[in-house]
Amino acid sequence: MHSVRFTAETSSDGVVERDFLVGEIPGVLWSPAAGSAHAPLVLMGHGGGLHKKTPAQAARARDLVTSHGYTVAAIDAPGHGERPCSADDERARTEMREAVTGGDADRFESVSVRYTLDLAQRAVPEWQATLDALQELPEIGADAPIGYGGGISLGTAIGIPLTAADPRIRAAIFGGGFFVYEQLLAAARQITVPVQYLLPWDDQYVDRQSCIELFDAFASEEKTLHANPGDHRRIRWVGLDEGFLPRHLSRVNTPA
Amino acid sequence: MHSVRFTAETSSDGVVERDFLVGEIPGVLWSPAAGSAHAPLVLMGHGGGLHKKTPAQAARARDLVTSHGYTVAAIDAPGHGERPCSADDERARTEMREAVTGGDADRFESVSVRYTLDLAQRAVPEWQATLDALQELPEIGADAPIGYGGGISLGTAIGIPLTAADPRIRAAIFGGGFFVYEQLLAAARQITVPVQYLLPWDDQYVDRQSCIELFDAFASEEKTLHANPGDHRRIRWVGLDEGFLPRHLSRVNTPA
Repeated sequence: MHSVRFTAETSSDGVVERDFLVGEIPGVLWSPAAGSAHAPLVLMGHGGGLHKKTPAQAARARDLVTSHGYTVAAIDAPGHGERPCSADDERARTEMREAVTGGDADRFESVSVRYTLDLAQRAVPEWQATLDALQELPEIGADAPIGYGGGISLGTAIGIPLTAADPRIRAAIFGGGFFVYEQLLAAARQITVPVQYLLPWDDQYVDRQSCIELFDAFASEEKTLHANPGDHRRIRWVGLDEGFLPRHLSRVNTPA
Repeated sequence: MHSVRFTAETSSDGVVERDFLVGEIPGVLWSPAAGSAHAPLVLMGHGGGLHKKTPAQAARARDLVTSHGYTVAAIDAPGHGERPCSADDERARTEMREAVTGGDADRFESVSVRYTLDLAQRAVPEWQATLDALQELPEIGADAPIGYGGGISLGTAIGIPLTAADPRIRAAIFGGGFFVYEQLLAAARQITVPVQYLLPWDDQYVDRQSCIELFDAFASEEKTLHANPGDHRRIRWVGLDEGFLPRHLSRVNTPA
């Protein structure tokens, strides 16, 4: 098993940001400068084509650190960020770009699904190895409550099979707005922890009904669908339940 | 024009509850015991078969008074609560009951739609007359921001045409979980103020797709769909945006 190897550290506005490697997986850990012994740990998954420190994700991570004292971890998905981009990765991206440019929606969907599924299958064991290593850190430990803090599109395509596979995750925020496929529905049916599901209501490519089927698939007793107009790039989220993670990652409350 | 005639007053836990009549319409006004000059006014519409002081509605009204200092008004829908029940009202209810007992879903829907539409057409001018009268009260006045605070089923079937018809309402909470009909969709298409739409995700009788069409129909730039599992009687709302009314009924903020 690999341990966490920190490679860089900066600090600003009360947030310590540490780059790390677990084996060859590059990650980042945001934590309160004031200390965070066994604070809840939130995992974040970036969107397709983005990376672990994408501005929106970094801003949300910093907000969770300063508002709640949480620790937040993100890693680059395979072929993203600092990670090598294989010939297969390049080919899939070229094909998706060509399909969009050429207006071939069916091809865009089939390439996108194949590539997303491939990324998710590689990413789940990477996240689990990262989690094993993070739990060895004294400031996290084995008993920090863990939540999956979302990201729509690729972050959810990875987060759903990860949450289904890993009982350490006790609550999860997912987002729709990408092509739903059978393996994803199958993983969702295994999830029983509380789920907050964010749905961009109007997507140029994605059939809304398939996103609704994904929400239906979660076996969770507590699940909330939250939709606002817009597609997953232009959406402006309004009226989100900011109490979701605090409710479920608190140590004093028994998880629902 | 009728004015507000107060008929009873009680006070408990910092909330003054005053029964009133506007003409023959019985209503109730909840307000802070500490005073409420020109505080926002929230209108509440009870569900079918219920009345203005139904426990869940009264509890929510009292919470809005004590948490935000609002004034909350509710009236009995035609044929409900303290109002006379006409032979037509009785017949519609009997028919709905028979349809449910007999397992005749189509008949249940057709009778329910006909009766709901009739109630809504009678209730909208009653609400507007009530609002005219309430605005004559010195503690409310013409400039208190007004919101429609919801109630699913009948409360929404009345609230949608009311909000479409009355520009005094600047934000509205509606709920799905009842049969959607064309006149309701037409009214929803005229609504442009911010809308929070609560959808019980699993209803024994109501087609979910029709409830989604209703959400789609609102012309509001800001609209949020919030769904939790359950039907409209057994639903347990989780993670609601409690900041919706405060955001839109604040005097200092310009309405979005």
